[in-house]
Amino acid sequence: MITLSDIEAAQARLDGRIRRTPLIKADNLSTPITTAELYLKLECLQVTGSFKARGATNRLLATPERDLANGIVTASGGNHGVAVARTGKLAGVAATVFVPTNVSPSKVAKLKQWGATVEIIGNVFDDADKAARAYAREIGAVYFHPFADPLVMAGQGTLALEILDELPDVDTFLIAIGGGGLIGGMGTAIRALRPQARIIGIEPVGCPTLKASLDAGHVVTIPKITSAVATMSCARTDERVFERVRAVVDDVVLVEDQAMIEAARWLWFELGLAADLSGAAAVSALRDGLVSVTPGEKVCALVCGAGPEGLS
Amino acid sequence: MITLSDIEAAQARLDGRIRRTPLIKADNLSTPITTAELYLKLECLQVTGSFKARGATNRLLATPERDLANGIVTASGGNHGVAVARTGKLAGVAATVFVPTNVSPSKVAKLKQWGATVEIIGNVFDDADKAARAYAREIGAVYFHPFADPLVMAGQGTLALEILDELPDVDTFLIAIGGGGLIGGMGTAIRALRPQARIIGIEPVGCPTLKASLDAGHVVTIPKITSAVATMSCARTDERVFERVRAVVDDVVLVEDQAMIEAARWLWFELGLAADLSGAAAVSALRDGLVSVTPGEKVCALVCGAGPEGLS
Repeated sequence: MITLSDIEAAQARLDGRIRRTPLIKADNLSTPITTAELYLKLECLQVTGSFKARGATNRLLATPERDLANGIVTASGGNHGVAVARTGKLAGVAATVFVPTNVSPSKVAKLKQWGATVEIIGNVFDDADKAARAYAREIGAVYFHPFADPLVMAGQGTLALEILDELPDVDTFLIAIGGGGLIGGMGTAIRALRPQARIIGIEPVGCPTLKASLDAGHVVTIPKITSAVATMSCARTDERVFERVRAVVDDVVLVEDQAMIEAARWLWFELGLAADLSGAAAVSALRDGLVSVTPGEKVCALVCGAGPEGLS
Repeated sequence: MITLSDIEAAQARLDGRIRRTPLIKADNLSTPITTAELYLKLECLQVTGSFKARGATNRLLATPERDLANGIVTASGGNHGVAVARTGKLAGVAATVFVPTNVSPSKVAKLKQWGATVEIIGNVFDDADKAARAYAREIGAVYFHPFADPLVMAGQGTLALEILDELPDVDTFLIAIGGGGLIGGMGTAIRALRPQARIIGIEPVGCPTLKASLDAGHVVTIPKITSAVATMSCARTDERVFERVRAVVDDVVLVEDQAMIEAARWLWFELGLAADLSGAAAVSALRDGLVSVTPGEKVCALVCGAGPEGLS
């Protein structure tokens, strides 16, 4: 189980290797979506276009060089793959990324621009993940899991340190969930530094992995994924990630794919931000009234990834 | 001629009416474009998607209510029009925006979303401008010029106050030029507060309005505009704007349209920023080596407008 000190160690390791992204107040809106005071952490401006650069880079920097000799292999809904591709490039190590068929074309293009070998396998992340693990074993490469890895989770947790450094009195955090690594990492830091803050996760209606597991009290597998948002579609979380999420999260709310598309359009029109659908998920939950807030409450929504989805 | 105090008055007037945009360090790049320390002022995240909100809002707030009775009329390459549309909406006043035929479709969509009446007239800004002035006289509306207006120029100048507040030791400013209002306004503030800084303007090769006028020593008209970048294509500047620009600018460099497209793609790939072509112009000049810099020099490039051009 990771602790605050793992996250602080990650922050020290990442210093100068990733970008410190801006936290902006979403004011002067044409169509306000909340009576709360809304802040957006623009992790869509992070290197590689998402927060995943934090976890992947931390994982790499903590890996002995000899383990990297046969390259890095990973599976990803898209963003983690791009982050691993960059990580590989920094280390001069070949990266192979397995993605499911519903990956967005813009993510595939980014993977190739960062020099990764791309394998498109399986309808959902979990299938791509199985293929990736088998391939890593076969060639003796190191495998970087997108969320079920304490170093990856600690890396993502550094986002909370940055936010609380600039805005120590956040009342509510809204954080999109794919496999749970981001909210588990950030939640660990938030519970240590700002225990009274609410931590709310957002999942797609068509893939409520953590919500279903929390409701059941144990890890469950989503039998059929109906969300088209690849970066948030993971049929099953990991036991340790689940325990971490259960310990830190107050609630998980579910948003429709269409609502995320509309939230991405809202971010573009109102703020000039090009967010992918997982990047728009937190705003979507607020916009749809799924999170109750009091006027003036300080809400920090993570815009966790970049994409063209809101621009058309 | 505007002075620093006009710009400070504009800043006070604009307080809470526009957004304070982030200034970020462009670090951790896959393909660095300079040995300088590069900072980007993200005015693409400004309300309405560009810096034009500053000038238009300042103009409105300084206009007596009775003058607004018959609405606001303007002409624009795109961004100023959107800013005026919002300004009209805030004041509950009808706005009519004349744009040339080469305006980008995304700007027209934005104009409509902000409730403006859009008139597409003429091949270039100057034609749309003539039609707009005639229409304003006809209906007795107030006319907001995109750059030849001291209040508009003072509003744009507030950008320099924000940058210097966060980064007082900027060595070089890179600022795109359309009609000259932005660089004239910012330059006025910079010369007052950081006189030793270099101020470099960027124009399209296909419409070097200020460059040609500076070279001639007086305002000249560009006989044929061959740039397709509407927001930077203005055949003739204004006498007072020219005097201001001549007094403050060190140099003007020219970039090709294609180089701006590539710079917009670079901004998207490297930083997740969706800049329009004028928003990418300053970066383009640096990327193409048109501005000589020394290692470690602090260069601030303005990303002055948002657009989808770099995402495809």
